[in-house]
Order: sequence, then structure tokens, then C-alpha cells
Amino acid sequence: MTELPVKIGILTVSDRASRGIYDDKSGPAIEAYMTDVLLIKWAAVKMIVPDEQAQIEAALMQLADDESCHLIVTTGGTGPALRDVTPEATEMVCEKMMPGFGEQMRTVSLQFVPTAILSRQTAGIRRQSLIINLPGSPKAIRECLDAVMPAIPYCIELIGGPFLTVDEEKVTAFRPKT
Amino acid sequence: MTELPVKIGILTVSDRASRGIYDDKSGPAIEAYMTDVLLIKWAAVKMIVPDEQAQIEAALMQLADDESCHLIVTTGGTGPALRDVTPEATEMVCEKMMPGFGEQMRTVSLQFVPTAILSRQTAGIRRQSLIINLPGSPKAIRECLDAVMPAIPYCIELIGGPFLTVDEEKVTAFRPKT
Amino acid sequence: MTELPVKIGILTVSDRASRGIYDDKSGPAIEAYMTDVLLIKWAAVKMIVPDEQAQIEAALMQLADDESCHLIVTTGGTGPALRDVTPEATEMVCEKMMPGFGEQMRTVSLQFVPTAILSRQTAGIRRQSLIINLPGSPKAIRECLDAVMPAIPYCIELIGGPFLTVDEEKVTAFRPKT
Repeated sequence: MTELPVKIGILTVSDRASRGIYDDKSGPAIEAYMTDVLLIKWAAVKMIVPDEQAQIEAALMQLADDESCHLIVTTGGTGPALRDVTPEATEMVCEKMMPGFGEQMRTVSLQFVPTAILSRQTAGIRRQSLIINLPGSPKAIRECLDAVMPAIPYCIELIGGPFLTVDEEKVTAFRPKT
Repeated sequence: MTELPVKIGILTVSDRASRGIYDDKSGPAIEAYMTDVLLIKWAAVKMIVPDEQAQIEAALMQLADDESCHLIVTTGGTGPALRDVTPEATEMVCEKMMPGFGEQMRTVSLQFVPTAILSRQTAGIRRQSLIINLPGSPKAIRECLDAVMPAIPYCIELIGGPFLTVDEEKVTAFRPKT
Repeated sequence: MTELPVKIGILTVSDRASRGIYDDKSGPAIEAYMTDVLLIKWAAVKMIVPDEQAQIEAALMQLADDESCHLIVTTGGTGPALRDVTPEATEMVCEKMMPGFGEQMRTVSLQFVPTAILSRQTAGIRRQSLIINLPGSPKAIRECLDAVMPAIPYCIELIGGPFLTVDEEKVTAFRPKT
């Protein structure tokens, strides 16, 4: 029997990318990062939506509920501008918020740019799915994933998801001994 | 006239400990810490409840309203798992949230374990009671209390509670001169 | 045609200052800071209200909607005491919250006083206005403004406000190249 791949949802939130006005570079950056660090068999479920709260919520629910992605990462829409509503959509579909993710990502991004405090990135749990907001720029995506990846495999176990193994030379997945 | 002891509520939130399946080590760790650092006459009001939001809320209200505990510390139930609902219960019974406590406890815990970002610990005020969520492990409890104890006596004064004196060789209770 | 000055709202929240029982030193401290670092032509719109949530909300709405202040800073009312309700009023009038501001101000204030974790300062966006809660003490006001000022001009641009230029010898206004 072949083992099914672990599905990871990658949601790009961008008015321009969704209309094809410019190429989505953020979604592929997340996919490349995951390919680089994950040792398990996995498959990306990629979606692109405009900065519309209802469409972001619908995509998150589809990735969590229909596609059974235990990890869903978004990119884009976390700033202060009128159309930036990704954190609001995330909060709306989650039962539990995880404030530590946003705090840690802002702390790390602040080492690179003082405007990191403008990021409203958050994370939360919808049933058995961990949803994490990442920034829009590929460089910041990598910085943020490096910051939170060590805690992601254990989190996914705690919510009843699959066991993720990572390349320990690239990122250390920490699991407390309890 | 004998001075009445200051009551401190210690609420252990744990399915297993509440059913007697295993010994509560977290509540006693908090009690030992307080005995170690407080110089005032105090008494612990201890409760153990399962990870049920309604029961956690009822216990917090009892400790605050009926027992007049001006300081209430919880242990357990702050993770991402389905049954972890202590922060939600805390938020429900508080009029004011105190985000700085959770931020500071996560920052300090991060020095020890990268999975500290998974903790959803928070704190808040219910009338004249300060409620603080601590983690479940006795080691992490001590690390977190060391991190926030310096601000607790002043906070309790600001909400109209008693004057707490602490052993300044163990922890410094900071009170701004205003 | 003369260029109109950029209006900045300065809202002092204090029972005593609003009754004239003592002089407001916090509002003038903010005004002095802005005069010191801003190179643009600007005008302060100053208000003083008691620690009443409805009055704080009304003042914030007036500064944002009627006075068109794209930056509004409050001082006072962010502690844990019963009458401290400035963060609640701020959240009530904002469509978007900006958690990074509060986190960063508490982190910086913690370098000076351990009771900084008691501050509930937050920030948010109401349409085209950025509202930021500052602490009450003039010394802490300066520390907090130094911490967040580098990100303020870019934030105000992102929400459709005017271009603020600052004295780069005093504070660096960071604008990412995108």
C-alpha cells in the first residue's frame, strides 16, 4: 500500500496575482522552502485569491475541511492597508488563536526591517489544521518560516495531524519529552 | 486583631489530574514558588478542574468573587490541542486583558524551548483579581513566574488589592515612583 | 497656494487633567517630540478627556473623521486599573488592530521597568487614521515614540495618508523598496 502524501495548503492572497497581472512569487517561495526542509512525502495544494475576506475564508475552509491540509500557510494581505484582511479572515475561520506565531515572526522580521511592526500576521487552529499567515515578500517568507518551523511539527501532532519529519541540518523540529 | 491571610487562587486545569489518574504536580509547584518568594501571610485556595471551558470559568469566578483571591494562577490547558481551552475561559471571565504577560512568558520560555510559541497563555483582570495562565510543567511554571513576578505586586495594588511583599533576594517587586 | 499643515491628533486621557486638577504634561511631551522630529508643516489638534470609554471613543472619532488626523496618539489610561479603558476605546473605533505596536512598545519599555508588562497599549487603523496608545509618563512617551516612529510614516502612506518627512538625524523613517 502506498503512503498518501501529506497535503499542505498554500494560499496566495493578492489582488494582482489573482487577476494574473503579475506572477505569484510568494506561493512558489513557500513551496520551495517546504521541499527544501521536509523529508516526508508531501503535496502542495495551491490556491490564489484576491484580497476579499469572504474569498480568503472560503479558501481556508476548503483547504482545511475538503482537502484535509493539516498545515495551511497564507502569504499576503497582512499589512495595514484597506484591502489587507488576511488576519481577519484567519481569525474568522479558526476556533483557537495562536498569538505566539505572530509575535515571534514580528520579532524576527524586526531584525531586518523596522516596519515589521506593521505586519498583522497571526496564526490559529481550525479543527485539525494549523493556519499561519506569512508576509508577502519571498525573503521575509523564508525568515519567518525559519523562525516558526521548529515548532510546527509538534503543533500538528498536538492537533491530531500527521508526523512531519524535517531535515535536521536545515531546521530542528523540537518535540518536548513529556 | 489577627491579620487575615492574603488568599491566592491556584487552579489546576487537567483532565487526568481532575480524575485522579495522575498526581497534580503543577499546583504544588506554584504553591511552593509562592511560599518561597512571598513574605506576607498568605493562604492557597486550590482547585482542580478538567479541561472543560464552563468548569474553568466557574472555578475562576468562584476564586475571584466568592473567595476574594486578588491573584489567581492557572496551570495547564494553554496549548493548541482540542481540549486546551484555559485562555478562552480566562478571556471570558475577564473585563480587561493584559497581553504583556503572555508575550513576556513566551519570550522567556523561548530561551528554553522553541515550542514556547505554541503556548497561548494570557492574563486578565476580573474586577479586583489578576488571573494569569501558567504552563503545565513545573519547570516552565518557575521560569514564567520568575519572568512576571516583579510586576505582580504593583498590578494588584493598581486594581485595589492588598500590598504584597516579596523576598527581594529572590525576586524584585518593582513599584514605579509616580 | 499654501500647503495645508498635516494634522496630528493628541488625545490626553486623564480624569485629573480633564478636570484641571493637575497640568497635562503628557500631551505637551508628545507635541514637543513631534516638533523635534517632523520636518513637514504640521498642526496639533489637542483634546483632553476623562477616563470614560464613551468620551474617549467620541474624541478619537472626532479627530479621525472630522479633523482628518491621519495620525492620532493617545496618552494615559492603558494600565490595569478600573478606570483604564483607553485600549478598549481604541479597539472599538478601529477596523484593524496593529498588535506589533503594543508588542514593540512593551519590549522597549521592559528595558527600563519590569512593570512594562502591565501596559495594555495597542494601536489600530480607523479608515485613513493610525491610532496609537502611548503611556502616561513623558519619559516613557519618548521611549515608546522612539521605538515606533521609524514605521509610522510608511504606515500612514499605506493607509492613504500624507507623506511625512522626519529629521533623519533623530529618527529614521524606513520605507521598504517594493
